[in-house]
Amino acid sequence: MSKPKLFTPGPVDVAPETYAAMAGPAIGHRGADFEGLYASIQPGIRQVIGTSRPVFFSTSSAWGVMEGCIRNLVQKKVLNLCCGAFSDKWYGVAQSCGKEAEKIQVEWGQPIDPEAVRAKLSEGGFDTVTLVHNETSTGVLNPLKEIADIVKSFNDVLLVVDTVSSLSAMPINFDDLGIDVLLAGVQKAIALPPGLAVFVTSDAALERSAKVEDRGYYFDFCEFAKNDAKNNTPSTPAIPHLYALKERVDVMLKEGLANRFSRHEENNKMVHAWAEGHGFGLLPPEGYRSKSLSCFVTPDNLDQSGWIKAVIQKHGFAINGGYGKIKGKTFRISNMGNETSETMQELLDALDAELPAFLS
Amino acid sequence: MSKPKLFTPGPVDVAPETYAAMAGPAIGHRGADFEGLYASIQPGIRQVIGTSRPVFFSTSSAWGVMEGCIRNLVQKKVLNLCCGAFSDKWYGVAQSCGKEAEKIQVEWGQPIDPEAVRAKLSEGGFDTVTLVHNETSTGVLNPLKEIADIVKSFNDVLLVVDTVSSLSAMPINFDDLGIDVLLAGVQKAIALPPGLAVFVTSDAALERSAKVEDRGYYFDFCEFAKNDAKNNTPSTPAIPHLYALKERVDVMLKEGLANRFSRHEENNKMVHAWAEGHGFGLLPPEGYRSKSLSCFVTPDNLDQSGWIKAVIQKHGFAINGGYGKIKGKTFRISNMGNETSETMQELLDALDAELPAFLS
Repeated sequence: MSKPKLFTPGPVDVAPETYAAMAGPAIGHRGADFEGLYASIQPGIRQVIGTSRPVFFSTSSAWGVMEGCIRNLVQKKVLNLCCGAFSDKWYGVAQSCGKEAEKIQVEWGQPIDPEAVRAKLSEGGFDTVTLVHNETSTGVLNPLKEIADIVKSFNDVLLVVDTVSSLSAMPINFDDLGIDVLLAGVQKAIALPPGLAVFVTSDAALERSAKVEDRGYYFDFCEFAKNDAKNNTPSTPAIPHLYALKERVDVMLKEGLANRFSRHEENNKMVHAWAEGHGFGLLPPEGYRSKSLSCFVTPDNLDQSGWIKAVIQKHGFAINGGYGKIKGKTFRISNMGNETSETMQELLDALDAELPAFLS
Repeated sequence: MSKPKLFTPGPVDVAPETYAAMAGPAIGHRGADFEGLYASIQPGIRQVIGTSRPVFFSTSSAWGVMEGCIRNLVQKKVLNLCCGAFSDKWYGVAQSCGKEAEKIQVEWGQPIDPEAVRAKLSEGGFDTVTLVHNETSTGVLNPLKEIADIVKSFNDVLLVVDTVSSLSAMPINFDDLGIDVLLAGVQKAIALPPGLAVFVTSDAALERSAKVEDRGYYFDFCEFAKNDAKNNTPSTPAIPHLYALKERVDVMLKEGLANRFSRHEENNKMVHAWAEGHGFGLLPPEGYRSKSLSCFVTPDNLDQSGWIKAVIQKHGFAINGGYGKIKGKTFRISNMGNETSETMQELLDALDAELPAFLS
């Protein structure tokens, strides 16, 4: 089964070593072998997240934990910061849990304005804010520190941050930021196959959780904390993914996190330079552009769909033709995961080779 | 990393071919490749479950879907049928979701009495019943058809059945039983690594779900049905597990389901005959004994913990020393998954070889 190599912004290409790690021995999850595995991942993944707190493993996609944040934290009202497909959807998910929700909605491609967050929270009544750090659908990198500082200035308002396509691709320090939940699926920047989410909670988040009724069991933060004390998970975990996470985190630390971040930055610059040469404009404004993926506005004279198909068929590389309501109007190139300047250059050469035939 | 081969009642030993299948190519889940994979699993897994209805794939353990059943179906009150660790826990999970719950509690090792279900439902006020078909903690096989017939005789009461350790090990026909949700994790009888659950819903369950508020997103039955129509899942799925499920279901159909059921029955009889030779008594009464695992009462003169450790250390085979409040007082042997009469005999020989040293 030969499939194109993915340069899409998740899932991304997975290393053979990661697949090999997934085939680790079957072990029961209520025993010493599993506890050892769980404990062995902690130092590395905590370093990636910039925290001394335990990292919890949820056998779910990131959406499971995103819903979990709503169920565990919202007593009064949540403010959803909406700037693309994933951040927008969080507002709907909050309502589907029966929680009161308001949103700040900006145009897709624009970042969240921290001062708008301050103004909205000043109206009062909120106890939780949701933010997607790196909005994968638009390539917008939101000003996390500025927003975190503002949310912190309001008493008893907790900030939840999705870092699905930024964690391990750029520096994030949970403890320094003083945010309350950081979560990520593993199939984007971390370059595992899908099937697991990781998250960290602040003391304030755990205290809130303990007081919120009807939060359920599967995503109950208190259950995660209780089981973590025994190096374990509340429910049967995706053990293959934990073997693979151990492998990937070891690889990250061997590369060095600073080197890993630089590699992503350099590869991202390569993509931007290539695009500039063709006159392709980025969707997000300067200063708010992701370093792990790039979202470009499709020029009117480009048969984008034909181009992408030709690159898949002739070169075996897949980029993405836009997501949700900007499908066909944008295209996205990922430089997440294990890509190097060499592999990115191979992609750009392939894109170049097919481009002329699809420009009019 | 050499680990003992698992004859524990989940997780069970996983075939090398299953691990190899998990390493299938990385594909995006919003495209034709994934839709093809999803569709290719349907005919086989429907045959295993005995249904013409779509089978949904949840990236979670079985507990996720068990909580999902509560959130999607309970408007008035749920009746939890409790006879062991897993069925008991469902009652707590129902309450953690803020739902009204009552239970029928029998002693661990005893089955649920269908007439007690009739009597309880006759009191009125219930709209949902939860049953664990094969209670893995005690080895009890509950009388599913009798209970299903009784629940069906009550208007607007839905029956949810967990078949984690029975599905694919013994005949179950969802359509004939007329139950409303059947669910299973994949790491027990289906012999995949943990990380996925499968479930089927009746029309009545979907209709109820559409009317129940605050059911959330991640386990929303309506979202599963909507996405299934496009051969897809609501959230990013555990693609490695779906590759592996396809592989396992193909193997099941190649063996033939009738042959698979017979194999489990014969292997289970071997274990029972072996135990009888030693005077080990089964915890469940005659007529209510699982065919996929066996739960024995630990005799007073057996140093069970020492025996189990010796078998692991000298033979590399792991059985289980009891679960929850009957840990140490029972031991369990699984014959789920891929075991043959030869591999079961190897286990029994190993158990025999070490036994004398631990009997007093």
